[in-house]
Amino acid sequence: MVNYPHMNEQGRAKMVDVSEKAMTRRTAEAKAVLRMKPETLDAIRKGTVGKGDVLAVAQVAGIMAAKKTSELIPMCHPIPLRGADIAFSFFEEDRLEVVARVKTDNVTGVEMEALTAASIAALTVYDMCKAHDKGIMIEETCLLKKTGGKSGDYLREEVKG
Amino acid sequence: MVNYPHMNEQGRAKMVDVSEKAMTRRTAEAKAVLRMKPETLDAIRKGTVGKGDVLAVAQVAGIMAAKKTSELIPMCHPIPLRGADIAFSFFEEDRLEVVARVKTDNVTGVEMEALTAASIAALTVYDMCKAHDKGIMIEETCLLKKTGGKSGDYLREEVKG
Amino acid sequence: MVNYPHMNEQGRAKMVDVSEKAMTRRTAEAKAVLRMKPETLDAIRKGTVGKGDVLAVAQVAGIMAAKKTSELIPMCHPIPLRGADIAFSFFEEDRLEVVARVKTDNVTGVEMEALTAASIAALTVYDMCKAHDKGIMIEETCLLKKTGGKSGDYLREEVKG
Amino acid sequence: MVNYPHMNEQGRAKMVDVSEKAMTRRTAEAKAVLRMKPETLDAIRKGTVGKGDVLAVAQVAGIMAAKKTSELIPMCHPIPLRGADIAFSFFEEDRLEVVARVKTDNVTGVEMEALTAASIAALTVYDMCKAHDKGIMIEETCLLKKTGGKSGDYLREEVKG
Amino acid sequence: MVNYPHMNEQGRAKMVDVSEKAMTRRTAEAKAVLRMKPETLDAIRKGTVGKGDVLAVAQVAGIMAAKKTSELIPMCHPIPLRGADIAFSFFEEDRLEVVARVKTDNVTGVEMEALTAASIAALTVYDMCKAHDKGIMIEETCLLKKTGGKSGDYLREEVKG
Amino acid sequence: MVNYPHMNEQGRAKMVDVSEKAMTRRTAEAKAVLRMKPETLDAIRKGTVGKGDVLAVAQVAGIMAAKKTSELIPMCHPIPLRGADIAFSFFEEDRLEVVARVKTDNVTGVEMEALTAASIAALTVYDMCKAHDKGIMIEETCLLKKTGGKSGDYLREEVKG
Repeated sequence: MVNYPHMNEQGRAKMVDVSEKAMTRRTAEAKAVLRMKPETLDAIRKGTVGKGDVLAVAQVAGIMAAKKTSELIPMCHPIPLRGADIAFSFFEEDRLEVVARVKTDNVTGVEMEALTAASIAALTVYDMCKAHDKGIMIEETCLLKKTGGKSGDYLREEVKG
Repeated sequence: MVNYPHMNEQGRAKMVDVSEKAMTRRTAEAKAVLRMKPETLDAIRKGTVGKGDVLAVAQVAGIMAAKKTSELIPMCHPIPLRGADIAFSFFEEDRLEVVARVKTDNVTGVEMEALTAASIAALTVYDMCKAHDKGIMIEETCLLKKTGGKSGDYLREEVKG
Repeated sequence: MVNYPHMNEQGRAKMVDVSEKAMTRRTAEAKAVLRMKPETLDAIRKGTVGKGDVLAVAQVAGIMAAKKTSELIPMCHPIPLRGADIAFSFFEEDRLEVVARVKTDNVTGVEMEALTAASIAALTVYDMCKAHDKGIMIEETCLLKKTGGKSGDYLREEVKG
Repeated sequence: MVNYPHMNEQGRAKMVDVSEKAMTRRTAEAKAVLRMKPETLDAIRKGTVGKGDVLAVAQVAGIMAAKKTSELIPMCHPIPLRGADIAFSFFEEDRLEVVARVKTDNVTGVEMEALTAASIAALTVYDMCKAHDKGIMIEETCLLKKTGGKSGDYLREEVKG
Repeated sequence: MVNYPHMNEQGRAKMVDVSEKAMTRRTAEAKAVLRMKPETLDAIRKGTVGKGDVLAVAQVAGIMAAKKTSELIPMCHPIPLRGADIAFSFFEEDRLEVVARVKTDNVTGVEMEALTAASIAALTVYDMCKAHDKGIMIEETCLLKKTGGKSGDYLREEVKG
Repeated sequence: MVNYPHMNEQGRAKMVDVSEKAMTRRTAEAKAVLRMKPETLDAIRKGTVGKGDVLAVAQVAGIMAAKKTSELIPMCHPIPLRGADIAFSFFEEDRLEVVARVKTDNVTGVEMEALTAASIAALTVYDMCKAHDKGIMIEETCLLKKTGGKSGDYLREEVKG
């Protein structure tokens, strides 16, 4: 019989065995907020940034990144997504909020997919505006809510508000 | 003669022509800061998180992500990196800072590579701790400095301090 | 409560939510036809093109591309394929037809997988023959038929013939 | 001494050795033309297709595909692109032309990058319109011109006009 | 009616149609054994190799490679893995064994995923030690066992032992 | 001034800075040897294995894998390959040797590219024959020789013979 010393019992990472978890409907919603110069935000809003319609590109980048999550986050399980969307909101004169929503029917959740989509969409905005404003800060990248799965639903405090 | 209507003059994105830019040494440094429960941070520091040595995995994830930047950020030029590194620092009882440094000799800069590395490393930390602490916030993702290229060096105010 | 302005209601793309669609058997068949110099086609047939057996390479390229479809087509859902095949036919003295057939059991169809497989196989033929014939034209890339799914079966007119 | 039987001398493909070729400026331009129902084309033009701004998504898809070319076409050399752009033109009531232009400084040309960009952009248009019009045909995918390299420039007959 | 000449009946490869196979629990276990200089093995064990903790990096590389298997092995079906782990054992003074274990619930097995994970983990060890020992040999890469599927279980002779 | 604690000085991996290394011609040659049942080897030679021409597929898989090396091996630098080839030899009645040769002009060597190409080609052979012979062993995966770079040339003892 094979009986290898389980070095992971010594502290190395593995992709956790989720084969006994139930296949259920899962959703997750995450955000990333960019703070930038008012004139940069204004240029995005008016679609006058040199590289083209910034948000249209960020939207595509975020959705494609959601599909790449398990290639990027080492211990993430590959998940066949059932839907993904991204929305942008302008707050005050200097903040742009990116919200990603992802859905699947699977044995694990899609929190990482939503977070990755929001992050890459935000980085794409940075990329397209950096010639004008290198100081843009992505201030808040976090999970807003999730539903489904054994650990139950999660709703961030600020969202419960 | 071919003379296509340049619809991009109407506002679509393109991968900017950089063929006339000079091939020079380029470096960039970016950070992402995670705020989490003190007990979560403590578990990372002690290496007792269930999925293994969190920072070792985040380090690899960040470096591999740096190499994937042009696949993720649509208008980014592919760049053969010459070096990439990631460092972690523990601040106070609840903050973990990820700093990515990237270097190349190329016609475009590596700001996006450093930002992508820091972001994905931070998201990997989130992934490996989320069973314990879904509320972890990535608070500050930004460029710290860059050198090389025609636009000159950049040093973030807080770094100049 | 969260209530983000749905900017997509303003016209941005999303990966459509297909979570309520039924998991059914799906097949699709697509073609791409290359028109080239008779001597180029003849060299392919005889396997004498400099870069090796053109069709063996195009076959592999097409099948691997079918698996990459959701990485290439932004709003495509990732689909675990159950089978994929490619067939080549020689027509007259100057046309090579590539037909890709793909099958799955899933909530969305595999039209894009079949079209991507046929297109990349055809482009691979171009790549391997372009030293001899840069003018090769891929004339007809289209869906031949699909089965399964709520929208019902589709059979191209020319195929119904 | 090592002396392996070169089975490629027996007809298998290889990635040709280009190490002795000169590093020069290279450009390529390729097109793909879609023929569709007038009402489908009209919906694209007006931006009223259900999945959002079709051409903005196709533009991003094409540019990202240009960067993936060497992953898709087996014997293609990886090339660090210096610029890539895509333009769309509406012809008559039923044809949409996609033109991709790619530039680099490298030892091999970028014909395949331009062709791949045009093809994937065209397939993305198909994907976003297929719910309305499965019969869309991609009629002409071909190289329009190339410059640079030892084999000299190429200009398609129709372009020479 | 369409009736294309099935050139595959003439000997080209296809991704076999597995749509009629049953969805069952599948596991596979594969190994790769590296033989190296005792001082190299000793440096790995003590974590003193210049590029950092060799096995932590190899672990992540192996797990990420398991997820990339269907991108690497042309005729492999894409499989959503349910779990993946890697273990290392030191044998005598000059051998390091890598064992990969993979699990899924799917219509095809995960032998290739386990073999790919073990191979890439072993190559990563090579990469990180090659500055010191270019002669490292990966001696035995093989399947140790598999369970599930119509063809039944498999247990390598040496394991039965 | 920024002065982050260099945790890598504490033992984490990084992609080594090679920006000061000279750009030179580099070649590498690696092999992988498969031992299998004589009847399996015979079927490969005769091209009668069910999944098609095994070696044609393995050839393409190996060359494509060479291009993916830096995505698979975490600390590998991305390298624009200038050429890649694979050769197969039949030894005795039960061994198939895969030899990969890779060439570039770059600041780092291509040993890992050659080893990855040979390994993935060998695993592809396994995949296509495993229905008949699960016990196939990849016995010897190693570097045969390399040229170029500051560390000088390397020639494996057996090759020096």
